[in-house]
Amino acid sequence: MVLSDSRSTQSQKRTLPPTKTKPATRYNADQNDEEKKQWVYLFSAGQADGDGSMKSLLGGKGAGLSEMSLLSLPVPPGLTIPTTVCQYFNENAQQYPSTLKSQVKSGLRKVEALTSCKFGDVEKPLLFSVRSGASVSMPGMMDTVLNLGLNDETVKGLEKQTNNKYFALDSYRRFIQMFGNVVMNIDMHKFDQIFSKYDNTTKQQENLNKIIQEYKLLFKNETGIDFVQDVYKQLWYTINAVFKSWNNSRAITYRKLNNISSLLGTAVTVQSMVFGNMGESSATGVVFTRNPSTGENIFYGEYLKNAQGEDVVAGIRTPNDINKMKQDMPKMYDELLRIRNILETHFKEVQDIEFTIQQSTLYILQTRNAKRSSRASVKIAVDMVNQGIISKKEAILRIDPLSIKNLLHPTIDPNQGYHLYTKGLPASPGAAFGKICLSANKVKELHESGEKDLILCTEETSPDDIEGMHLSKGMLTKRGGMTSHAAVVARGMGTPAVTGAGDIQININEKKVIIGNKYELKEGDIITIDGSTGEVMKGQLKTIDVTFSSEFDTLMKWIDEYKRLTILTNAETPDDVLRARNFGAKGVGLCRTEHMFFHPQRLPIMRQMILANNKEIRNQALDKLLPFQIKDFEKIFEIMNGHPVTIRFLDPPLHEFLPESDEDINQVIEMSNISKDEMMIKLKNMKEVNPMLGLRGCRVSILYPEIYMMQTKAAIQAAIQCNLKLKKPVEINLMVPFISSEEEIEIIKTQITKCIENLLPDDNHQIKYQIGTMIELPRAALKANDIALHAEFFSFGTNDLTQTCFGLSRDDSSSFINHYERNGIVKQDPFVALDVDGVGELIKIAIQRGLSTRSDLKLCLCGEQGGHPDSVKFCHNVGLHAVSCSPFLVPVARIAAAQAAIMQGKS
Amino acid sequence: MVLSDSRSTQSQKRTLPPTKTKPATRYNADQNDEEKKQWVYLFSAGQADGDGSMKSLLGGKGAGLSEMSLLSLPVPPGLTIPTTVCQYFNENAQQYPSTLKSQVKSGLRKVEALTSCKFGDVEKPLLFSVRSGASVSMPGMMDTVLNLGLNDETVKGLEKQTNNKYFALDSYRRFIQMFGNVVMNIDMHKFDQIFSKYDNTTKQQENLNKIIQEYKLLFKNETGIDFVQDVYKQLWYTINAVFKSWNNSRAITYRKLNNISSLLGTAVTVQSMVFGNMGESSATGVVFTRNPSTGENIFYGEYLKNAQGEDVVAGIRTPNDINKMKQDMPKMYDELLRIRNILETHFKEVQDIEFTIQQSTLYILQTRNAKRSSRASVKIAVDMVNQGIISKKEAILRIDPLSIKNLLHPTIDPNQGYHLYTKGLPASPGAAFGKICLSANKVKELHESGEKDLILCTEETSPDDIEGMHLSKGMLTKRGGMTSHAAVVARGMGTPAVTGAGDIQININEKKVIIGNKYELKEGDIITIDGSTGEVMKGQLKTIDVTFSSEFDTLMKWIDEYKRLTILTNAETPDDVLRARNFGAKGVGLCRTEHMFFHPQRLPIMRQMILANNKEIRNQALDKLLPFQIKDFEKIFEIMNGHPVTIRFLDPPLHEFLPESDEDINQVIEMSNISKDEMMIKLKNMKEVNPMLGLRGCRVSILYPEIYMMQTKAAIQAAIQCNLKLKKPVEINLMVPFISSEEEIEIIKTQITKCIENLLPDDNHQIKYQIGTMIELPRAALKANDIALHAEFFSFGTNDLTQTCFGLSRDDSSSFINHYERNGIVKQDPFVALDVDGVGELIKIAIQRGLSTRSDLKLCLCGEQGGHPDSVKFCHNVGLHAVSCSPFLVPVARIAAAQAAIMQGKS
Repeated sequence: MVLSDSRSTQSQKRTLPPTKTKPATRYNADQNDEEKKQWVYLFSAGQADGDGSMKSLLGGKGAGLSEMSLLSLPVPPGLTIPTTVCQYFNENAQQYPSTLKSQVKSGLRKVEALTSCKFGDVEKPLLFSVRSGASVSMPGMMDTVLNLGLNDETVKGLEKQTNNKYFALDSYRRFIQMFGNVVMNIDMHKFDQIFSKYDNTTKQQENLNKIIQEYKLLFKNETGIDFVQDVYKQLWYTINAVFKSWNNSRAITYRKLNNISSLLGTAVTVQSMVFGNMGESSATGVVFTRNPSTGENIFYGEYLKNAQGEDVVAGIRTPNDINKMKQDMPKMYDELLRIRNILETHFKEVQDIEFTIQQSTLYILQTRNAKRSSRASVKIAVDMVNQGIISKKEAILRIDPLSIKNLLHPTIDPNQGYHLYTKGLPASPGAAFGKICLSANKVKELHESGEKDLILCTEETSPDDIEGMHLSKGMLTKRGGMTSHAAVVARGMGTPAVTGAGDIQININEKKVIIGNKYELKEGDIITIDGSTGEVMKGQLKTIDVTFSSEFDTLMKWIDEYKRLTILTNAETPDDVLRARNFGAKGVGLCRTEHMFFHPQRLPIMRQMILANNKEIRNQALDKLLPFQIKDFEKIFEIMNGHPVTIRFLDPPLHEFLPESDEDINQVIEMSNISKDEMMIKLKNMKEVNPMLGLRGCRVSILYPEIYMMQTKAAIQAAIQCNLKLKKPVEINLMVPFISSEEEIEIIKTQITKCIENLLPDDNHQIKYQIGTMIELPRAALKANDIALHAEFFSFGTNDLTQTCFGLSRDDSSSFINHYERNGIVKQDPFVALDVDGVGELIKIAIQRGLSTRSDLKLCLCGEQGGHPDSVKFCHNVGLHAVSCSPFLVPVARIAAAQAAIMQGKS
Repeated sequence: MVLSDSRSTQSQKRTLPPTKTKPATRYNADQNDEEKKQWVYLFSAGQADGDGSMKSLLGGKGAGLSEMSLLSLPVPPGLTIPTTVCQYFNENAQQYPSTLKSQVKSGLRKVEALTSCKFGDVEKPLLFSVRSGASVSMPGMMDTVLNLGLNDETVKGLEKQTNNKYFALDSYRRFIQMFGNVVMNIDMHKFDQIFSKYDNTTKQQENLNKIIQEYKLLFKNETGIDFVQDVYKQLWYTINAVFKSWNNSRAITYRKLNNISSLLGTAVTVQSMVFGNMGESSATGVVFTRNPSTGENIFYGEYLKNAQGEDVVAGIRTPNDINKMKQDMPKMYDELLRIRNILETHFKEVQDIEFTIQQSTLYILQTRNAKRSSRASVKIAVDMVNQGIISKKEAILRIDPLSIKNLLHPTIDPNQGYHLYTKGLPASPGAAFGKICLSANKVKELHESGEKDLILCTEETSPDDIEGMHLSKGMLTKRGGMTSHAAVVARGMGTPAVTGAGDIQININEKKVIIGNKYELKEGDIITIDGSTGEVMKGQLKTIDVTFSSEFDTLMKWIDEYKRLTILTNAETPDDVLRARNFGAKGVGLCRTEHMFFHPQRLPIMRQMILANNKEIRNQALDKLLPFQIKDFEKIFEIMNGHPVTIRFLDPPLHEFLPESDEDINQVIEMSNISKDEMMIKLKNMKEVNPMLGLRGCRVSILYPEIYMMQTKAAIQAAIQCNLKLKKPVEINLMVPFISSEEEIEIIKTQITKCIENLLPDDNHQIKYQIGTMIELPRAALKANDIALHAEFFSFGTNDLTQTCFGLSRDDSSSFINHYERNGIVKQDPFVALDVDGVGELIKIAIQRGLSTRSDLKLCLCGEQGGHPDSVKFCHNVGLHAVSCSPFLVPVARIAAAQAAIMQGKS
């Protein structure tokens, strides 16, 4: 057999034009080029026009079949019409290249020769499956038509060949139904109505004939034409339908949602049919080369004898474990095992294989890299290194860093049905169930009465809710994005959270939650939330707890061999710092001191401080806060045991701390010795229209230097204490937030230095410390050369930098950022993954300018995005020294950092 | 006479070291250098060591006296100790250069020779005045000591010389008092107490002797030493005191407040005394070469016979008009007139001259450029061009652009006393008086009852107050900066406003305003505000109305010969557009369409639109708004008559329009046909934490494209109408606000283009239009190359760009930006004058990147800063094509643009 083109020219074909050029023009410009072009790619065991690398041209399915053919595996012969035809079709008013039909016809001739059957033949009819397939799998497009080539005549040939009238008629019935529904858009329901009129269990041939007649009538009524008898028309109608489906709205939406913009179109694969339902020597099944759930290196899968693929999926009959085949069909099993080994060795990856045995002949219909659980992916990667199949670097590159989060949090057991109420943002990973509590106080109340499984469900959370947040198992908010108060606090605590679930309405008076105008829940009803997916579900679902495998430990060790970036953590509570340390954090990159003051014991003092009428009262309050702060720092220093700790001075708008309830206000009035009137005026004056852009960060310190001085004192005194106890000396980075000018950092640095000099009068207590700034405002990035004169390190605060670069409030963006993502206006929520084009540009400018005046400037990124793999990669590539992220993202960042280093080495 | 150094070496001396180096080191390093250095500069009629250009070395006074000496004017001889000595003194522990004392002594010898008197001589004592003087005048420093050189002996010599015992004793008394107070810091009050014990009118020599005795006793009690009899000690005590006063807190504060950081120190001028009080042939006075109030070219000033300078200032005797001298002392008058002409011709500027006539000899004590009113400065500049004294370019450069604002608004008549309550920000220029109204409704109520002079006084204003704001004569707010709602609206309306007057407390319940805890005012009390200075004053002050002089018109014509920038206006009401046109605006650079919807007739419809539950209701509301919008645009197009009009689509956070009162909410509910519950939820959902960074600008259009389409339709239909009426075709720029990405502008531009194509089906209605964007977010500036692919023009929105670049909310910054300015952390409020370093850098980046993809990109700036001269200069220098500012700032911007062009040509 001679295939239509030689393999040697394939490398040329693989260099496709970039997607944004308009090939339509090109085609019109040179008609000859179009005629000469190869529009059809054949494959059969031992030979193929394409290969596995040509996914963008042949789609995943076509490329896989070609590759298997080249491996001489038993693939039923067929042909693939490449994605370039789809592109041509959609750009030329649904016309085909002029030579396509003749190329298809000649391809079919070759398949006929290989199968000794003939398309449309009454004696030995050749039947085809027709499948779509782009280079990535894509729901929404037209999928599959089986048994194509059957008509009133060829059905008889099928009967003769198989000596099975029932089988032949049932195949024809199925084909009419599939073709009618998939190609001609007849409602499937209407076919089902006809079918269900007849007894379901004892279908006789008689009935099948009647069903076929009724199906054809339905077809005529719905489409206006008789059921298509011409097999070539059947084929082209189907190919047309596939290409048209590329641009149906579901497919377009899917591509937008998944940021798929670089594809030319879908390919169509026309493959000769084989049947697993030709008696007891026939079978069909799906196998995995290893267990995709646990990663164990054992043959895994199921099969059904005398059945078609659909039957395995439909679940009407229970399939057998693949290992039963060893006894049942020993020769077939051995053959399958042989192919399993060939495929895994060839692809160096766990394979998910579809096969059919037709009368004791094994056919492989599809192979692809197997989807697997996070746990399995780690075990498989490590095992494969140990088996010498792949290198350590390859193993590391195979891990999806984000999926690692699943290993660190409880997950929902996938082996159960569930009822989805709504979906919000996956704000803090992990699954949790519990009783709905509509206020932090309700959480406290139920917790005191002994209830533990509680989900706090509010419009949004505020610092006042901290205690209730601590006591809840999970959080669900209506408003706020991935970096809202609820999200940030929840991630810090490691508590699962779903935020920005705009669909829910909370009626606090009637103690009700209404979801999407459909479900009405009461306070106390049980829900389950999945903070990894954003899902909110009915009732209590089973969850799976966290355990670490030895393979995970091995992998994480390898990772440290390759990564260059230091991974730090954003944490301030001892629990979080310890967790991050255990996850491999090499220091604290962001200790948000303000979080330390929300504790009920401290908040009133904090309020007294903020609302002080004069320096004296402010200093009184600060004196009371000092011992707390010293203890906080001591604990962190002890846990970090010599690793650097970056302490960020008080940052948020002061009004976040202000009292709101009468009780709280009266408490502060008593403490502060000022009149109620004065206090109310003061509170009113402190209200800000845009608090994110108000009196916060270093601006507070410019007005009231004594606050940062208290914090400096606390850090230094804690370090002196710890240095007496610890072996390794404490290393402190003092970080000034919200700097926008050289003047600010110059003034504050001078104050800090003087304060420390006063605390360290002699040489006995030398403390290792540096003073640096957050770079979180565009102006700071632009003036980095001046700022670096006074800052020993920069830490990029990408939350604020994103807010100001985009003019986008993290608290308010949920109302439209979803729409933006869905419509491809932003690739990803910039609060989740760093906006490399805009915010990243500012970071690059700041790095370049900062280094221009201080060549040993330390560079870190400590925004929420620090744990996102894409952002970590960016950080590596632009030459940062460290990234800092929330404790649970530390392993993710470590993997991403190693991957970035490996990828950089490659290019 | 040989002066201490020849003039020929002066140019070398003028190249002083830059101020930031530490000369202390230099001096110590080379003792010889110090010894050789010239520390004393002599002057006398006809000769001088220095000249008028050496202000930084000799101070303004010293340089002026030197220059006059070189012009051979009758200057009493003396010497100046330069600012370098002050610098040395302050950097070397209050020590003097080693050769200073000998240089001073030898200088004094020369003055003695010139005056034929001797310092400390009993027969013919030489007396001195000792004055401080930096290169700019600076309150706070020690000022003047007169009659230095008198003691118990020399006073007798003075008596002999003048034959006037009373004069001699009184001079001695005055000296003890001045020296005691100014040099030794004895409370002036204590001298006054002694003096007032004796009869004030008939002071006898007897009494004077007693007073002198008591003064000396006081001196001893206060200082512990006897009154200083050694005249050299008198001199050095005084010089010490001057140099020390350079670093007193008042002087430091003044320098900080006025951004004076480049000075070395103050100089000290020691000049021989002349006396205007030696009988009827003596006199003293102050003259201006032209009228500093009107600018008229007439000799202007006052004199007093037999008097000292103090007497003229003290106002005890009423001085005579200088023109009376013509009859009174004709020779002296002619001599003065001759000197007036020499000085004005020499300095090419109006001079403010101090003179003394001592026994028929005229002496000139000081000359300096005269302070003058805005009106005078224009007239004088134009007159001087017409007289051929200066060029047009020089005339233009002499005008302070900001002072021109005073010509366009009523000002407070300076000829009246007033009582200042407090000072806020000068938010909208002009003066106004009226009854305090604590709410917009109160303004309406009183206005209806016929009261017209009303000042709206509130915490801050909101869009709901618009009607009341329109009806008030002036506005005063407690909160908000120069670009707060009140400020922007007031400037737009041309209504005077003072904002951010933090000192006032409004008690709405008791209808009271408390100012600085000192003054309690009731609603209805009358105040006067000056929006040009920020002052709030008691009662009704007299104001001066606006009139334009022909010189102003001439100047503005000259300006257009030089400026390259096109000056446009930010305006949307017909009144404002017309005003701007009359002030010379060549188009509308920013028509803020949202301002058009606050009208009571439109606001409910606007609310219906915003709160619409679906597209249908939204479109219903938009259909109702369309005819209003068409009429708005028609009026603007007519006034601009062919000049381009830039229409900015709806920009602010939608919630600015939301109803707050029950009445307003119910109105929208009725119109929108939705339930109260639904409405309340909707209102709650639309609340934003940081509205400036929320759902606004083009984001609204991405969610609801129909809003911008209505506005596009209105603009095009209005243009079609106007093109039928007007001779010059309408030119429209459609401007999309708050763009942060290429995708946004691409989508919206496509929608607009399609909309316009549908409106212009045939070739009969060709409308000239362009589509462009605001660049008001850092990300837009950084991605300008991509954005310019879809934008035909950029307009820099420097309010928002400043907010996001600095992370600074214009509404909230007043709480700390004053502190920042006072302490030199920012040079100027960046909402008033563009922050060239940071925001300016973003603008430069955007220009460079924008032009890289679209070389004919039009570039404009339309933020509030567009009317500030420094910002206009920046715009010129970076190559913008236009700036747009509020109507009253159009003339300011025109002048600044011409100055920038002239300055650029010079360098």
